[in-house]
Amino acid sequence: MDPDAVAKAFVEHYYTTFDANRAGLANLYQDGSMLTFEGQKIQGSQSIVAKLTSLPFQQCQHSITTVDCQPSGAGGMLVFVSGTLQLAGEQHALKFSQMFHLMPTPQGSFYVLNDIFRLNYA
Amino acid sequence: MDPDAVAKAFVEHYYTTFDANRAGLANLYQDGSMLTFEGQKIQGSQSIVAKLTSLPFQQCQHSITTVDCQPSGAGGMLVFVSGTLQLAGEQHALKFSQMFHLMPTPQGSFYVLNDIFRLNYA
Repeated sequence: MDPDAVAKAFVEHYYTTFDANRAGLANLYQDGSMLTFEGQKIQGSQSIVAKLTSLPFQQCQHSITTVDCQPSGAGGMLVFVSGTLQLAGEQHALKFSQMFHLMPTPQGSFYVLNDIFRLNYA
Repeated sequence: MDPDAVAKAFVEHYYTTFDANRAGLANLYQDGSMLTFEGQKIQGSQSIVAKLTSLPFQQCQHSITTVDCQPSGAGGMLVFVSGTLQLAGEQHALKFSQMFHLMPTPQGSFYVLNDIFRLNYA
């Protein structure tokens, strides 16, 4: 299994789900998962999805510029993303960077243990 | 030991060393360390420092905008940085994002296991 291919597939799945149905991200997180969103720390799948679904915009479209990945040790995988976020009704897209630490599940899939998101105001 | 304080101290030390004496970064990496620099994958302290010291600019100045950190499991710490990089003689600073996965050493310090760097051309 090519780690770069897994990372790209995860990233595509994540942002497609984010843009179409944010509540559907819940099963990518677990109770121990951490999100730092623009400096705000949130823990656990329920709280993370509550945060993401309450962001002050309804429709958005992520576009991915780069995806990098590295093994993190202990079966985990670090995925580092840069891209743009277009909010409905806004003229300019926002640049963002985000990192995920994916950990394997017993079912052979991955969940997000760590998630850090930052906008880079261009 | 406050993880946010450790992360900030590491980041300050890292970029101060980078800007003053890049070769001095060697002891922050080990043989298993990985760097992905603008998509190029490099492994091991020697190769990483060879890459960093051969970048096509001599003098530079990093300025840090944000530092986020989370525990990565197994004693490690994820540090996510955004900031700007001013190259000597250039008019505009470049935006960058970088993530580090710090792992504890037996001496009670940390080394960089994972390092991913990307410029976000603004």
